[in-house]
Amino acid sequence: MLSKLLAEAVGTFWLVLGGCGSAVLAAAFPQVGIGLLGVSLAFGLTVVTGAYALGPISGGHFNPAVTVGLWAGGRFPGGSILPYVVAQVAGGIAGAGVLLVIASGAPGFDLAGGLASNGYAEHSPGKYSMVAGLVCEVVMTAMFLLVILGSTHKRAPVGFAGLAIGLALTLIHLISIPVTNTSVNPARSTGPALFVGGWALQQLWLFWVAPLVGALVGGGVYRMLFEADAEPDVIGRPATS
Amino acid sequence: MLSKLLAEAVGTFWLVLGGCGSAVLAAAFPQVGIGLLGVSLAFGLTVVTGAYALGPISGGHFNPAVTVGLWAGGRFPGGSILPYVVAQVAGGIAGAGVLLVIASGAPGFDLAGGLASNGYAEHSPGKYSMVAGLVCEVVMTAMFLLVILGSTHKRAPVGFAGLAIGLALTLIHLISIPVTNTSVNPARSTGPALFVGGWALQQLWLFWVAPLVGALVGGGVYRMLFEADAEPDVIGRPATS
Amino acid sequence: MLSKLLAEAVGTFWLVLGGCGSAVLAAAFPQVGIGLLGVSLAFGLTVVTGAYALGPISGGHFNPAVTVGLWAGGRFPGGSILPYVVAQVAGGIAGAGVLLVIASGAPGFDLAGGLASNGYAEHSPGKYSMVAGLVCEVVMTAMFLLVILGSTHKRAPVGFAGLAIGLALTLIHLISIPVTNTSVNPARSTGPALFVGGWALQQLWLFWVAPLVGALVGGGVYRMLFEADAEPDVIGRPATS
Amino acid sequence: MLSKLLAEAVGTFWLVLGGCGSAVLAAAFPQVGIGLLGVSLAFGLTVVTGAYALGPISGGHFNPAVTVGLWAGGRFPGGSILPYVVAQVAGGIAGAGVLLVIASGAPGFDLAGGLASNGYAEHSPGKYSMVAGLVCEVVMTAMFLLVILGSTHKRAPVGFAGLAIGLALTLIHLISIPVTNTSVNPARSTGPALFVGGWALQQLWLFWVAPLVGALVGGGVYRMLFEADAEPDVIGRPATS
Repeated sequence: MLSKLLAEAVGTFWLVLGGCGSAVLAAAFPQVGIGLLGVSLAFGLTVVTGAYALGPISGGHFNPAVTVGLWAGGRFPGGSILPYVVAQVAGGIAGAGVLLVIASGAPGFDLAGGLASNGYAEHSPGKYSMVAGLVCEVVMTAMFLLVILGSTHKRAPVGFAGLAIGLALTLIHLISIPVTNTSVNPARSTGPALFVGGWALQQLWLFWVAPLVGALVGGGVYRMLFEADAEPDVIGRPATS
Repeated sequence: MLSKLLAEAVGTFWLVLGGCGSAVLAAAFPQVGIGLLGVSLAFGLTVVTGAYALGPISGGHFNPAVTVGLWAGGRFPGGSILPYVVAQVAGGIAGAGVLLVIASGAPGFDLAGGLASNGYAEHSPGKYSMVAGLVCEVVMTAMFLLVILGSTHKRAPVGFAGLAIGLALTLIHLISIPVTNTSVNPARSTGPALFVGGWALQQLWLFWVAPLVGALVGGGVYRMLFEADAEPDVIGRPATS
Repeated sequence: MLSKLLAEAVGTFWLVLGGCGSAVLAAAFPQVGIGLLGVSLAFGLTVVTGAYALGPISGGHFNPAVTVGLWAGGRFPGGSILPYVVAQVAGGIAGAGVLLVIASGAPGFDLAGGLASNGYAEHSPGKYSMVAGLVCEVVMTAMFLLVILGSTHKRAPVGFAGLAIGLALTLIHLISIPVTNTSVNPARSTGPALFVGGWALQQLWLFWVAPLVGALVGGGVYRMLFEADAEPDVIGRPATS
Repeated sequence: MLSKLLAEAVGTFWLVLGGCGSAVLAAAFPQVGIGLLGVSLAFGLTVVTGAYALGPISGGHFNPAVTVGLWAGGRFPGGSILPYVVAQVAGGIAGAGVLLVIASGAPGFDLAGGLASNGYAEHSPGKYSMVAGLVCEVVMTAMFLLVILGSTHKRAPVGFAGLAIGLALTLIHLISIPVTNTSVNPARSTGPALFVGGWALQQLWLFWVAPLVGALVGGGVYRMLFEADAEPDVIGRPATS
């Protein structure tokens, strides 16, 4: 169990350092910055690389909502949720801390820039309302869990889940960074918020509530779809009945 | 059959929410917007992720033209076309509806922006003529079907079809967003058009006719290529005779 | 053999329509254009999708230099080179033709823009000299062939060659579009040049000579590397002796 | 052994020519340049393509830090380190040399632009301090090695390591180009520095020390994680105990 928790902490460390790091360090670099497209790719690749490297140890969740959603989908034991979540949050805080060390080495760095914290209303990148943020985070997390549960189902082709899941996170960021800076992951939100404080901490509740609700919804939809009458088919092949 | 239809509805919901959502919410975000490249990637990734997650249930069409093209290629039963198409259109409408809920949470949102509807002539992003739009949608859909049918053929390597098909949709968008905003999928066109009304509805016919014609062409080319004299070869290996 | 030639023609049609099409239609679209990064991705994805869809039929060359390089590497029969090349050139011309039909549907279209033709010196996008263009095309094609021959070798993991080869073409474009607009493929160069005429035809010789020389070099390096003393290892695993 | 060393030299040649080449030739091309996102993708794709093409011969390190980190992780014999590193450095120098030949074919080329050399403080793209550069290079290389060692572990799915490792290098560049221009690879740093001289040579020490330290850290973390109590699980599947 210890190596599982270490793997979850390291993977979440990588997710926050890589995803938030690309946003803070490189997104708006003059002339040649990577933009929201580059940040979306970076978040996704932290999961692609983490899944192939650490997945064999811990399952590669790196996200409390994923852990809870896997439990809701009947694929993770309830008794392991708490230690997994603690490890993930600890890793996320470490990732934000290392990012702060690097970022503060540039002239004129200002923590008030937010360290890629998540927010809504006046702290949404595009000034989206709290309701828009809630809806968006719930729906995105639900679809994220559906992709995770479906692509790791025994009927899906072996080995591709790491790509599908990581690229799902890229897709989610491509859609929703303007709305909430994209969380779908309470540990990813908590790390930067602890260092930024103020508004980031005050708005942190939404990025625990909405992803967890979305994860439960996603787990439920998965059960509805996969425990019904579908016959086994090879993925990608058209159904013939 | 019910779980197949639910899977098609959810997958098409995801395609419209993710693809059109990235266009509406993030494409033109100031300074760091994802642009047409990000939108192209998003559309493709909805299919990559949907294919690995839901493909084992329904085959992962998410598109009436795909369903019809698979039938034309001899790989889908005619009697299931209608329910599949109904589920896809319903999912597409739901995706556009949720997108509208989120998008309208930003100050100054204006539905007249089009919700990423498809169009030609004065409603083409680059003002391309109706004929150019027709030719483009027919050719793109035909090639899309050829990729789908070829990469899921029993001689293709197992598991890679989801990537090849999704990335084909990315490619198609990289080429043709300026021409018609890219449809190749009547359900994707119908969802936003119902909410936008007016010109989007008036031009909707083209985005049913052209993709369906293209799908029939693609299915026919597939039959010509794959039912001819080719010996079995391993994909990617150079033919030796 | 007929279906092989048809597959090569269709695949090269797709390569030219998709790659050059993304350049002509979408690269410089105002504000949200896909840029050279999008064009690079498009060229690569024509090969990724074509390889998985058509590779089982013809081997998926879509490029006279690839066909010649595979022969140089001992993996393709000399007697099939000529028909393959004819089919590829025919497909490339058809791709450029359909692109012209679509592109000319926009107001203000001007064929003098070049239809993404390849060029050097004053017709190089970045005004690179003829010598720079020659060196670049030879080296890029040689490395392209090395990737093709290595990733389809029997010791490489099955199924990944289509991705590796297509992404190699993306990489080559990321490097060299400013130098020559990137060819590494005489059929891709010939299609647009026939419609553009003038300088594009006058400079076409380089985009036959350099890729073919590069392909022979790449085939030779492959033979040197793979027919030497290396023991069999699993790809990606570190060698242990 | 000779073919292994040739493969390492060719692969590192490709990494430097492709990665630094995309930066020098295409990153800041007017209007449509590929930016740091394109450069990040290019570096990663040199490794993806090199791994599938040459990995079966030499293991596909292309990087002294990788070779040392694999030894630290117990997966590479100490006696082969020196010849591998010599081959990699020679390949890196050749790559920078060919890049110089091509780049100098453009009007107004100026070697003082740096040929994509790595640097810190006043030679960091974003003027990041030496300490920030050190921390960044150590952490990034450590995570790179963890991905390499984990994704090639016998419990990881076969064939995906080349993608995971190459995309990890893309991710690392997405994060850290502004800090040091990203090295994590002493051979990549040495090639351009030899041609640029001056500051690039004076700062080269950091890009040997930090990646090698990071590699040792990564190898150690790997041993801690993978030689502990974890039971075998299929990658990507959630752990169930």
